Parts: sequence; C-alpha cells; structure tokens
Amino acid sequence: MLVKVGGAVVEDEAQLMQLLKDFSAIEGRKVLVHGGGRKATKVAERLGIETQMVNGRRVTDTDMLEVVTMVYGGLVNKNLVARLQANGINALGLTGADADVLRSHRRPPVAVNGVPVDFGFVGDVDHADGAMLSRLIEAGITPVLAPLTHDGEGHILNTNADTIASEAAKALAAHYDVTLIYAFEKPGVLSNPDDDNSVIPIITHSLFNQYKADGTISGGMLPKIENALAAIEAGVSRVIITKATAIDGHHGTVIKAVSC
Amino acid sequence: MLVKVGGAVVEDEAQLMQLLKDFSAIEGRKVLVHGGGRKATKVAERLGIETQMVNGRRVTDTDMLEVVTMVYGGLVNKNLVARLQANGINALGLTGADADVLRSHRRPPVAVNGVPVDFGFVGDVDHADGAMLSRLIEAGITPVLAPLTHDGEGHILNTNADTIASEAAKALAAHYDVTLIYAFEKPGVLSNPDDDNSVIPIITHSLFNQYKADGTISGGMLPKIENALAAIEAGVSRVIITKATAIDGHHGTVIKAVSC
Repeated sequence: MLVKVGGAVVEDEAQLMQLLKDFSAIEGRKVLVHGGGRKATKVAERLGIETQMVNGRRVTDTDMLEVVTMVYGGLVNKNLVARLQANGINALGLTGADADVLRSHRRPPVAVNGVPVDFGFVGDVDHADGAMLSRLIEAGITPVLAPLTHDGEGHILNTNADTIASEAAKALAAHYDVTLIYAFEKPGVLSNPDDDNSVIPIITHSLFNQYKADGTISGGMLPKIENALAAIEAGVSRVIITKATAIDGHHGTVIKAVSC
Repeated sequence: MLVKVGGAVVEDEAQLMQLLKDFSAIEGRKVLVHGGGRKATKVAERLGIETQMVNGRRVTDTDMLEVVTMVYGGLVNKNLVARLQANGINALGLTGADADVLRSHRRPPVAVNGVPVDFGFVGDVDHADGAMLSRLIEAGITPVLAPLTHDGEGHILNTNADTIASEAAKALAAHYDVTLIYAFEKPGVLSNPDDDNSVIPIITHSLFNQYKADGTISGGMLPKIENALAAIEAGVSRVIITKATAIDGHHGTVIKAVSC
C-alpha cells in the first residue's frame, strides 16, 4: 500500500498524529509519500524569498530550490521518519537522489495560457527504480518519499508529490499488488465541492472524460485523477482518493480503468 | 573506508569538488559522514535565529533543531547525494532516524567550567546499527550520514559529526576491516598549529596523554583524537586524521592503540 499525503495534513499536528497512527496500523508492505508546500512557503517567506505559483505549481529558482531541499528533504521528511520510528515502523526517508530511486529531467519552459513559463528547477520523472524500492521494502524498511528527484548530473529537482506517488506505485506494480491512496482533506472526489456527502464512488476513464467535459471535476483535481488513471493503466491494482483520516481502503473515490 | 568531512570542506565549492572526486575514486565499500555547522549558522542568521556555542558545541533549542534538521538532513545531505550519484556512486543519505541506524538520548545538562549548560536537543549515541548499514552497503549503496540522530520517541537530535563517524565505524568493525578517516582543513595533527609541516605521524594512547599534558595538543583536536582512540579500541582497524585533499590513506596522522 502506497499512501500519499499532502502538505495540509502533514503540517496540521492533529491530522498528522491520526495519519501516522493509521499508516502505522496498515499491515503488510507500505510506502509513504509526502508533500510540504505550505511549510516551504512559510520558510521561504521567513528567508525573504518570494513564492511564485503558476497554475498551482511552484516556480523553483535557485533560492527556492534550497528551500524545498531543506523543507521537503530535511524538516518534513526527517520528522515523519522519526515519528514513524516511534510507532515501531522502520521508516527510511528518501528523495529521488537517494539510491537513485527517482530520476528526472528539468522541465523545459511550457506554455501556460499561451505564455511560456519556465518553472525552473522542476523535474519530470523519467525513471522510478521499483527493484531498489522493493529491495529496501524486503529488508523490512518503509520508504518515506519526499517530493524531490534528481537529474543524474548532480542536481536536485522539485517534483510534484502526486506524480512521485503514481510513478513509485507504477514501478512497484512490477513487484507487488499495489494499492495507491491519495489522502487529502476531502472525503473523496466530490460532485459538489461544497457537499462532503457528494463523494463520487467510482471514476473510470470514460466517466472522467464526461465529468471533465460537463465541469463536474475541475481545477487541481484534474491532474490528480490523471495521475491516478495513468497508475491504473500501468498496472497499479487500485487507486483511491480519500480523506487522510480514512486510509483503510474502504472509503473515498475508487479510480478504475473500466466500471466492472 | 569511512570518511568524515567537516563543514568547512563541504561548504567550499573547490574543496568539495576535489573531495567528491577523491571519495568517488576510493575502491571498495565506503561511507561518507558530513558536518554542516557553518551553513546552519548562516541559515539560522537569515531566519533571525541566534547561534549560541558553548565550548565549540552548538546549543540546540527548538528553532535551531528545525534549522539543523533542514540544513544537515536536507540541504547538505541531499546535495552531496545528488553529486555522488552524478559520479556514479549509488549514494543514500541517512540521518540516524532513517532505518533506525543511529539511536541516541538527549544529553542531560552538563557542567562547563563549573556552570550547568543545557545543550538542548543534542543526542549522545546509544546504538549504531552496523548490521543495517552493512545490509545497505551489500546492496551496492554508499551511505551518506548526516549529523542527526533520533531518540526512538519521535525526536530528531543534533549530534556531533565526529561522534557519528566513530560510532558508525565501530558498529561496522563487526562486519568489515574498517579504516576511519577524519578529513579536515589541516594536513594532520600538528605539533605546531602554525606549521603545516609539523604533522605528528603516529599518535598512540600514551603519546596522546603526553601531548595533552604538555599542551602540544589542545582545544577541538582533543575530542577528535579521543573519538579516534575510542574507535581503535573498539575494533576499527585504522584511524587517520588528514587533509580533505589527501584521503588516500597514506597521509596525515595515524591513530594507533600502541606504537608497534
């Protein structure tokens, strides 16, 4: 089971406590992937570094790369690892550079609303090493992945945590029956964003296209579901989008290739 | 071969380039241990956090613990790992919390010149897991250890890098014939601190006591040699104190239990 938790959960003490308890209680082999964007923004602010977001994605210049390397790779990752150790989980924090588990290339400038945007030191994943992750897991280790990769030429690159989760899940699917859980602050994908009782139980590729076309699903949920569908199509057994307090695999929205 | 490099080397681009090249060229199994104190002091300053040192050791309050966790565990460690990867070394960064490799307890207040000093979140090592380190090494991994440990109760603790090096070397001595190299800015232990040609070739326990008594060796070199002697007495085959540009095992001061 591979659980991805966003920054909002990791940075709220009560939610984090519950998440770590629930994650620790999961039986069998597991992996945790975390974000940390809000904390990075706070530390950047204290250092006098301006945070620039385009379409919800962070522009990562040299100064911001230092901040995310410190916050994701150090502060957030190591505190998660230490707290999982206290729960009896033999956690090991990894960026993509560690044991070369996630290699990427720097994203070239892309057009956003017709304007070319250089996101800076941001990596698009080329390769996730499922064999190495599996080797660590078989040694009794629970990998804790930070949203950082490397380019193989000595540079750390900032990488979206949802993408890290789906790439790692896809690479692990060659070795295990993988369930990927995207845990966040909502109980699932909602048909009405203001109604937590409007969880869509199942989303298939064709349902996704339909919801996308009619505007039921929009914004930041689109890339999350695209990552989820890509994972399913690459051999991940189950993908679930759910609340961070309900990661038992029985709640939230199930992403499926086809409806049966 | 276990090489410990101090912050002064890690934070100087030219010295770091050379060190990484030389370290990468070492044949056989190897481990790197790094410091990063100067960088931590700089980041703390930019965050408006005052650095307080007592007898050359950092007082680590809650704010400073955040800084060292970010700088040692994130910034310094991950950049070293990414650059070693670029040299073809399958490096993996670890704090003591990662895979539970170095467990410690918080140091109680100690008397310094008769005054009790609480160093805060500073850890004294209780256990280094040589079996886990050896397992990673046998998987083709080069561990890169940051000067951070954990207490098993969820807390990261700041820990002296020289101590991390000697504890890891001692734990690995049960599995390998270990050479421990303390690499720093001087060519070895000097009998005259102003003369780089005054390297003392061999220091034994009895010679150390003599040099200590007559004042030839003093200050920060004392705990370094004490760590080195402790490592030798615990089964580490060779301990060498040398310049960071001369880590081939044939330069510097050799620390021996006895002179023959």
